[in-house]
Amino acid sequence: MFKINEEYLKLPGSYLFSTVARKQREFEAAHPDKKVIRLSIGDVTQPLVPAVIDALKKATEEMAHKETFRGYAPDLGYDFLREAICKNDFHARGVQMDTDEIFVSDGAKSDCGNIGDIFSVDNRVAVCDPVYPVYVDTNAMAGRAGNYDAFTEKWTNLIYMPCMQENGFAPELPKEEPDIIYLCFPNNPTGATVTKAQLQTWVDYALRIGAVIIYDAAYEAYISEDDVPHSIYECDGAKACAIEMRSFSKCAGFTGVRLGYTVVPKELMQDGVSLNALWARRHGTKFNGAPYIIQRAGEAVYTPEGKRQTREQIAYYMNNARIIREGLAKAGYSVSGGINAPYIWMKTPDGLTSWEFFDRLLEEANVVGTPGSGFGPSGEGYLRLTAFGTLENTLEAIERISKM
Amino acid sequence: MFKINEEYLKLPGSYLFSTVARKQREFEAAHPDKKVIRLSIGDVTQPLVPAVIDALKKATEEMAHKETFRGYAPDLGYDFLREAICKNDFHARGVQMDTDEIFVSDGAKSDCGNIGDIFSVDNRVAVCDPVYPVYVDTNAMAGRAGNYDAFTEKWTNLIYMPCMQENGFAPELPKEEPDIIYLCFPNNPTGATVTKAQLQTWVDYALRIGAVIIYDAAYEAYISEDDVPHSIYECDGAKACAIEMRSFSKCAGFTGVRLGYTVVPKELMQDGVSLNALWARRHGTKFNGAPYIIQRAGEAVYTPEGKRQTREQIAYYMNNARIIREGLAKAGYSVSGGINAPYIWMKTPDGLTSWEFFDRLLEEANVVGTPGSGFGPSGEGYLRLTAFGTLENTLEAIERISKM
Repeated sequence: MFKINEEYLKLPGSYLFSTVARKQREFEAAHPDKKVIRLSIGDVTQPLVPAVIDALKKATEEMAHKETFRGYAPDLGYDFLREAICKNDFHARGVQMDTDEIFVSDGAKSDCGNIGDIFSVDNRVAVCDPVYPVYVDTNAMAGRAGNYDAFTEKWTNLIYMPCMQENGFAPELPKEEPDIIYLCFPNNPTGATVTKAQLQTWVDYALRIGAVIIYDAAYEAYISEDDVPHSIYECDGAKACAIEMRSFSKCAGFTGVRLGYTVVPKELMQDGVSLNALWARRHGTKFNGAPYIIQRAGEAVYTPEGKRQTREQIAYYMNNARIIREGLAKAGYSVSGGINAPYIWMKTPDGLTSWEFFDRLLEEANVVGTPGSGFGPSGEGYLRLTAFGTLENTLEAIERISKM
Repeated sequence: MFKINEEYLKLPGSYLFSTVARKQREFEAAHPDKKVIRLSIGDVTQPLVPAVIDALKKATEEMAHKETFRGYAPDLGYDFLREAICKNDFHARGVQMDTDEIFVSDGAKSDCGNIGDIFSVDNRVAVCDPVYPVYVDTNAMAGRAGNYDAFTEKWTNLIYMPCMQENGFAPELPKEEPDIIYLCFPNNPTGATVTKAQLQTWVDYALRIGAVIIYDAAYEAYISEDDVPHSIYECDGAKACAIEMRSFSKCAGFTGVRLGYTVVPKELMQDGVSLNALWARRHGTKFNGAPYIIQRAGEAVYTPEGKRQTREQIAYYMNNARIIREGLAKAGYSVSGGINAPYIWMKTPDGLTSWEFFDRLLEEANVVGTPGSGFGPSGEGYLRLTAFGTLENTLEAIERISKM
């Protein structure tokens, strides 16, 4: 008689985005004359840039002819892409990196979810609170999270690191000692960042206690300030204690294209075992390479035209972020984020809960945000707004909120 | 101090294809005048068909414009593709299937590797011998395989079901009772199939003992005989005991494009828990959808032009299979497979081991095969040849072998 993985049964329903969508639907049905604007979406809205489109078309044409057709890609990624990544994302920032430390994948979400495979179930995991739910849910599925306590909204075996206004939305070193630490900067959902000096503290800490840091840098392209690190490997010693995930989703609008990569440095060892070798084995056994045409699209992001065009796209979104941030501040709201990230983290006024303010915003301004409490208990009292809408909608949404 | 997943350390090196490649390289270096022909590759060589290329180009153009751009795909797949799959792969064969039983993915290898996530570590697993290594290695990584015994070349906790000439390369019901049974028909590597009546025996057995069957139907498009089932769901009761994996890699040459799907029927339950719901949760948490343009390419496979063009491509490969099968039989070799599968399973002559015959074939005919022993101990004494080469190379290879 087969047995299921009972850890799955402990997962609470993931109702956040479905409840947001239902409330919007119900409001629209009751008020067909109102135009609702969504500032809740984490998905991009601008089309792929011309350099990427050209690369996709060219590679597709190659697939149409026997002489240039490509079958199975190398499991770990084509060299042309791994070399472009090394050169542009690391060497250009003074970080030494070899191509065989880069593992190309179908996106950072898959990698964040799958990385747990190479670690024992018997590890204590620390996460920020609020947090991107994938880190928590995938550790719960693996049996590392303990049990879910519906009252505290926490898992009994996870170490939560609160990120609130009081600490500038930057986690403090935890009191309990973790084995695996998830960090994401620029942060989803708070939009906060840490300086290179702050991140160095985490690297030093991980090295001291023998922990590994899973560093999610999916939003690094949105960094505008100089002292904010783009990669954890800008910190001394990070290659001996950190795995980094990168995504093409937000830097080049690849949410529907699917491409990302994970860095597992060769220096990262435990008891003489190379984690690079473990991840190579995992990747080679449970994954069959990212599509050739999409790896060519990724390569195009690093060409001079690709860089210029994606920079313009990011500037478009970051102008939205500025409009939201400045507009809300002017209207008297307390906001953070939106300077090095496409997310604005807004404190709810008048002591309202996240959901209460969500409802007020929907009813009075016909604007949809994402309740901060959906990202963890320390997100209560906040709302996440995103810069991924159109300029016109963003301007109108902020005007409406200002008049509330 | 973080701890790695020590199960990975038990995995023997996967040297099969690297040793094959090394021996070819060494031979070519020593004999630069000889033209080596590879009948060892499981990868396709024909370009994508025009219907697929057109769909890729059209979808790429959509991604270039704001009005038609698509961001995140639905985690479980676009309805247009899930509906085409239901209609063509199931309804057309009289099998009832709903779109929400279809989970679109980046390929059958990922799904075969990841499906274990939803099952407890505490399950006895049965595999055919010889076998596609992914089933074995991923269960070993999860801790279900026990320890690897280098002498027997078997894992201590797996149940092996030998598939040899004596039983027509069809496994017999195992003596020990398994919880999870992996079956692959048409089979890689043997090219063997089972009839619908034979497969019904397995479904009845699984229902009787409460086992789940993981059915890999990646090669179903190569079936030419009428009584060979294309889907396990052609058997009565299979929806209550079987998960099926499908691939676009071999039926439409998508090895470098990456698209597949898994069927988890809603009837498949354990202790009141729906495995469909578990897989939906896994898929939604650790995967972010297959690329839009590639799902459109998959949809094109089911259009009248797509069907006709991919059928022609399969006929091309199956003509190669016939040439290999008939040519080797005429030359006095014992061969099987190649009628409902692109693989020909060749018995080594003169009591040679797989590797001894591999060497002789390379030296005397300058042809590369894949030693059967690399797929498991019961593969010893066999060689796998594939039909995925060009017609010209296939003809020449068989002529050379015939003259040996």
